[in-house]
Amino acid sequence: MTTSIPTPWTAEQFEAKLREKEKCYHIFHPFHIAMNSGQCTKAQIQGWVLNRFYYQIMIPMKDGAVLSNMPDKEHRRLWVQRIIDHDGIEGDGDNCDSGGIEAWIALAGAVGLRREDVLSLKRVVPGTRFAVDAYVNFARTAPWQEAVCSSLTELFAPTIHQKRLDSWPEHYPWIDASGYQYFRKRLSEARRDVDHGLRVTLEHFKTRAEQERALDILQFKLNVLWSMLDSIHVSYGIGESQSGAIARMHP
Amino acid sequence: MTTSIPTPWTAEQFEAKLREKEKCYHIFHPFHIAMNSGQCTKAQIQGWVLNRFYYQIMIPMKDGAVLSNMPDKEHRRLWVQRIIDHDGIEGDGDNCDSGGIEAWIALAGAVGLRREDVLSLKRVVPGTRFAVDAYVNFARTAPWQEAVCSSLTELFAPTIHQKRLDSWPEHYPWIDASGYQYFRKRLSEARRDVDHGLRVTLEHFKTRAEQERALDILQFKLNVLWSMLDSIHVSYGIGESQSGAIARMHP
Repeated sequence: MTTSIPTPWTAEQFEAKLREKEKCYHIFHPFHIAMNSGQCTKAQIQGWVLNRFYYQIMIPMKDGAVLSNMPDKEHRRLWVQRIIDHDGIEGDGDNCDSGGIEAWIALAGAVGLRREDVLSLKRVVPGTRFAVDAYVNFARTAPWQEAVCSSLTELFAPTIHQKRLDSWPEHYPWIDASGYQYFRKRLSEARRDVDHGLRVTLEHFKTRAEQERALDILQFKLNVLWSMLDSIHVSYGIGESQSGAIARMHP
Repeated sequence: MTTSIPTPWTAEQFEAKLREKEKCYHIFHPFHIAMNSGQCTKAQIQGWVLNRFYYQIMIPMKDGAVLSNMPDKEHRRLWVQRIIDHDGIEGDGDNCDSGGIEAWIALAGAVGLRREDVLSLKRVVPGTRFAVDAYVNFARTAPWQEAVCSSLTELFAPTIHQKRLDSWPEHYPWIDASGYQYFRKRLSEARRDVDHGLRVTLEHFKTRAEQERALDILQFKLNVLWSMLDSIHVSYGIGESQSGAIARMHP
């Protein structure tokens, strides 16, 4: 008896399989659907912004963990840009960038939160922490190519940012328009990051078993984003009828 | 100018502070309230049993991590019993115990699940994994006294097990009564474990700052249990009206 080893997918097939994972993206989470269709209260929008901030601040630490495992200078030169995108850089004119974390704090201000309420992390719900920490731990301990692969949820990010830019001003006229800079900023950055992440992934995962492992890794990262919304959903509810949900979270 | 250092609580006060944390126990989570008041469908009960199984199987690994950091044989002799309680032990007559994990699998059978569906972990939702893994990671990396302190949610466990024994047979007559052995078994085990965990905690955390740290550690563990239910809640919903929730979880 022989065991047949499945043929690897071609690069095009493999990329298509990765892109098919979009169906598990958090854009389809009930809380996110509600948020993008105008059903959230101000407190629920604020809750999402506050909680998502924990993800924002952990991402450059996650990217530092990836760098710490990355022996190739050429890859590091590309990867370090992600940290700069989040943390910003001092400079003159076009070189100056206050960074994604500051842009997120501006979003927080635009939805009516005080800077210190965001920075304190006091209202970050535990499930958000557990999910984000799982992602950082993965990046610390996995081979760097696997950590790169896990970043490929960025394949789906431009759509989610564009949809926010399209729908939020209409649904939530009370949000100051200056807050949307983060979403605009990520539209181009995510596209650039995907080119690198996709190249590494298509080159590294060669056998069918490896390619299937890559899909599992991408699913893990999709699960991180999804689970964050689970806890936000239960803590804050959706709409006026559930606006007391948070009281049960903090009895 | 002098900074006043707060006086440590007495052992009685400190224990009372720890016990006050019961107000954050997952018995007050909306999913758990619904489950204990008969509002869950069979699929929702099965979802809880399947997901909670991941916690059950990770607990002895967590306890192994605690042992790995515990230099004192007398403490290890007490702690190792927790692993035996979960994994069981071969023996004759009264010494023989098939263990808590097998008792949980029996509960799964009593609610209509097949053994292999439970063991495969395929239906464990990501948020359950992230929360439980955070607990195991804490036990691996924290000083052993802190890991012991985090186990003190057992202070509140007898009540939750007793309530299940009291209410489930009436609310869910379709559950085979043979499934309730786990809850009965834990009634006595949890009480015994608490004696040791409480003694270690009261002895180790001496200054007010340390005592407050102990409260934060207990809160972390409460958050683990709470977050598991967040994701179960979103994935399975509560009651017939939300029985399609899981379809959105796995689009």
